[in-house]
Amino acid sequence: MSTRIKIKALLESTQTDIDVTVKGWVRAFRQNRFIALNDGSTNNNVQIVVDFENTDPALLKRITVGAAISVYGKLIASQGKGQTVEVIAETIEILGDSDPEKYPIQPKKHSLEFLRENAHLRFRTSTFGAIFRVRHSLAFAIHKFFEERGFVYLHTPIITASDAEGAGETFHVTNFDLNNVPKVDGEVDYKQDFFGRSANLTVSGQLEGELGAMALSDIYTFGPTFRAENSNTTRHLAEFWMIEPEMAFADIIDNMDTAEALLKYVIAYALDKNKEDIEFLTQRLLDEEKQKPQNERSEMNLIEKLQFCLANNFERLTYTEAIDILKESTPNKKKKFQYPVEGWGTDLQSEHERYLVEKHFKKPVILTDYPKDIKSFYMRQNDDGKTVAAMDILFPGIGEIVGGSQREERLDKLEQRMDELGIPKDELWWYLDTRRFGSCPHAGFGLGFERLVLFVTGMGNIRDVIPFPRFPKNAEF
Amino acid sequence: MSTRIKIKALLESTQTDIDVTVKGWVRAFRQNRFIALNDGSTNNNVQIVVDFENTDPALLKRITVGAAISVYGKLIASQGKGQTVEVIAETIEILGDSDPEKYPIQPKKHSLEFLRENAHLRFRTSTFGAIFRVRHSLAFAIHKFFEERGFVYLHTPIITASDAEGAGETFHVTNFDLNNVPKVDGEVDYKQDFFGRSANLTVSGQLEGELGAMALSDIYTFGPTFRAENSNTTRHLAEFWMIEPEMAFADIIDNMDTAEALLKYVIAYALDKNKEDIEFLTQRLLDEEKQKPQNERSEMNLIEKLQFCLANNFERLTYTEAIDILKESTPNKKKKFQYPVEGWGTDLQSEHERYLVEKHFKKPVILTDYPKDIKSFYMRQNDDGKTVAAMDILFPGIGEIVGGSQREERLDKLEQRMDELGIPKDELWWYLDTRRFGSCPHAGFGLGFERLVLFVTGMGNIRDVIPFPRFPKNAEF
Repeated sequence: MSTRIKIKALLESTQTDIDVTVKGWVRAFRQNRFIALNDGSTNNNVQIVVDFENTDPALLKRITVGAAISVYGKLIASQGKGQTVEVIAETIEILGDSDPEKYPIQPKKHSLEFLRENAHLRFRTSTFGAIFRVRHSLAFAIHKFFEERGFVYLHTPIITASDAEGAGETFHVTNFDLNNVPKVDGEVDYKQDFFGRSANLTVSGQLEGELGAMALSDIYTFGPTFRAENSNTTRHLAEFWMIEPEMAFADIIDNMDTAEALLKYVIAYALDKNKEDIEFLTQRLLDEEKQKPQNERSEMNLIEKLQFCLANNFERLTYTEAIDILKESTPNKKKKFQYPVEGWGTDLQSEHERYLVEKHFKKPVILTDYPKDIKSFYMRQNDDGKTVAAMDILFPGIGEIVGGSQREERLDKLEQRMDELGIPKDELWWYLDTRRFGSCPHAGFGLGFERLVLFVTGMGNIRDVIPFPRFPKNAEF
Repeated sequence: MSTRIKIKALLESTQTDIDVTVKGWVRAFRQNRFIALNDGSTNNNVQIVVDFENTDPALLKRITVGAAISVYGKLIASQGKGQTVEVIAETIEILGDSDPEKYPIQPKKHSLEFLRENAHLRFRTSTFGAIFRVRHSLAFAIHKFFEERGFVYLHTPIITASDAEGAGETFHVTNFDLNNVPKVDGEVDYKQDFFGRSANLTVSGQLEGELGAMALSDIYTFGPTFRAENSNTTRHLAEFWMIEPEMAFADIIDNMDTAEALLKYVIAYALDKNKEDIEFLTQRLLDEEKQKPQNERSEMNLIEKLQFCLANNFERLTYTEAIDILKESTPNKKKKFQYPVEGWGTDLQSEHERYLVEKHFKKPVILTDYPKDIKSFYMRQNDDGKTVAAMDILFPGIGEIVGGSQREERLDKLEQRMDELGIPKDELWWYLDTRRFGSCPHAGFGLGFERLVLFVTGMGNIRDVIPFPRFPKNAEF
């Protein structure tokens, strides 16, 4: 017996006529002779050739789809099509059977919805193996990008007491017996709860991230964030991962440059490291789009779209310029938008973002300088008195993938804006302290990790790019 | 003006007599002449030399501890002690003032407790700058280790519905108004809650991690985990980060080898990348220990301890062997243990672990094959019918830093154990499915990230190695 070699390494081997041990799960077994074996290290299967005439029929019967097996044999150059090497089995050991009558993952095309219900087994399909290997590479590339640039990875808290940002519905975290919540004068007595106060799951690590940046210069978070919104869409999750860099001594231009560089870096990394996975996902998307009418199909395939994104500068323009374009656009004039664009000041809807990105510029777009009334209190106020130094990056097919801004570093301006919006300053004393002591221009942004994975894998539903999605009425697995 | 250069790069510069712009926070200002400036990129400050006779006195007055400044000037070889280069200031700009009467972080030694209460500003001290840079490097090295070995980083869910593992008290996650929890027949009506069922914060990603490993071969998690235990100790947090690798086709020996290799890899990485930080922390610990009686001081300093850990194999022995050593030990015979070691079967207390690691072997220890009754249901049962293939790694000064096992891959054995322990099999149908379809030997472990950071930084309180610690009655920031 030899040490087990992973299938990815085996398929890349330049040596043949050597003894190998491979282990994995049977994807297919043809003619009692050819096993397609996969161990998750690569999208490709290795072909195992079985000498069925000299193999115990009882063993052959147990080589079923989904079974885990160990194969010892000789690696040889393959005569067949589709592979350069194959393994001539000398011994086959069944590690774990898989009853073909009961195994949910059959060697056929399952619907994505069926696989979502079997998320514990969908990793064993080519599509989901590819998705989660790509997801891994994107995550690693994010860490690598920031490591190379001297950013400190900061674990900001998941459980927070401050709900001051008001960024949406939050989940409560409690140690109370919900059958018997202690009350004082008819109100919940949070003093008795675990943290001695009301606590929630974080919606963003930004505010705490800024505290780190105002000492360490450049930090980033990469952690889970939560929204208790009752949104059953293909773009929203109750639990999702965000990357939030914060940079001291940086303005909105530095912010845009860093975000664009980050996105290009991680896409390039995945294209290089996961070539076969992305080729597979490109073909998957082509097959899926074949069922659509010609005019709804993408102009570029997945790989082309990713390469295009690397090769071109993102289009940078202000919100005000975008409104002008939208007002004059054909769909607006022909009243094709659900929400007509009439004037300056309203928030952009998904249909408007998609028009800008997919029809007008046909490339990623960075919109800046939004009206302050549709943006958060911590964004730096521009001199015009109307706008803030915000920046959103819009991606084709995805919409907003990055949202960020230069932060308001001036204590008086920040406090004034908090007062206007009714945000309690005493709860955020620690945030304001960074403006009291050694404040400086700084900027940051949030990147929605699952939206990035959607873009790079070409998948259409965000529930398919996170291992075990959380959404209304679902916390299975 | 030139582009800003970070202080780490500036201090490593081999060029002098060049114009530079540096930005950072004032750590000290001596004799109206020498500014110690730090920007968090390194433990070291750069010395800024001010020509005070030709500088506006109003400006000089604003160069206070904690102020953020931008300096343009010439980088020259330094004549002074303690630095090789310094910057002769040409212009100084105050970016953010810091009132010396009010700024909490004074240029003196603050207690760790005081700094914990000012966790939003403690990043600006040498000690916490060093800690969080080391923490970053350890996190990056963990990702790098697994990337090099083909592991897939898997984001297992934070919100889970299954409390089946019974690993301790969990936090509830709910969308209910706690003042008005809906009930049916006097019981909480979870059907109305966000997820349509009772939900908690995860205590471990292991079970979901195994699902990934049973398809992708090697996966790891690195995410937050939670315990709602009312423990006010220097070793426990309510929210902490764990790394949990799971490996298919692996046994307990592979598991030990991987865990030991991982720990050595990341310690070596931090020693290399954060030499100055760890030197600073070594001196800090020496200073702290000077206040202890001689016999309570460490035999090795921090760097020596880390290097020793790299240079020596971890001691591997069984629980049974450990019990024999402890029974015969001097403290046991002299009744110095709070919990006397009398026989086989009881769990080891911290004092026993410390004796083994710090007194008997004087090196990291891997204990294996614990009695099944003190370990979890998913651990693989050994042939002796009494023990399971568990492995715990014990570190000097820390105690258990890793806990893991070969997992029970045999459906009948697993179900039998679940029945014995009253663990509901229907709730874990998806976990059992991996044993029904293509099961295989596999193993994994959990590494407590903060305990690792404690070990490498030489800090004594776990609340000092996570940015914003969560513990009973505390969720500030």
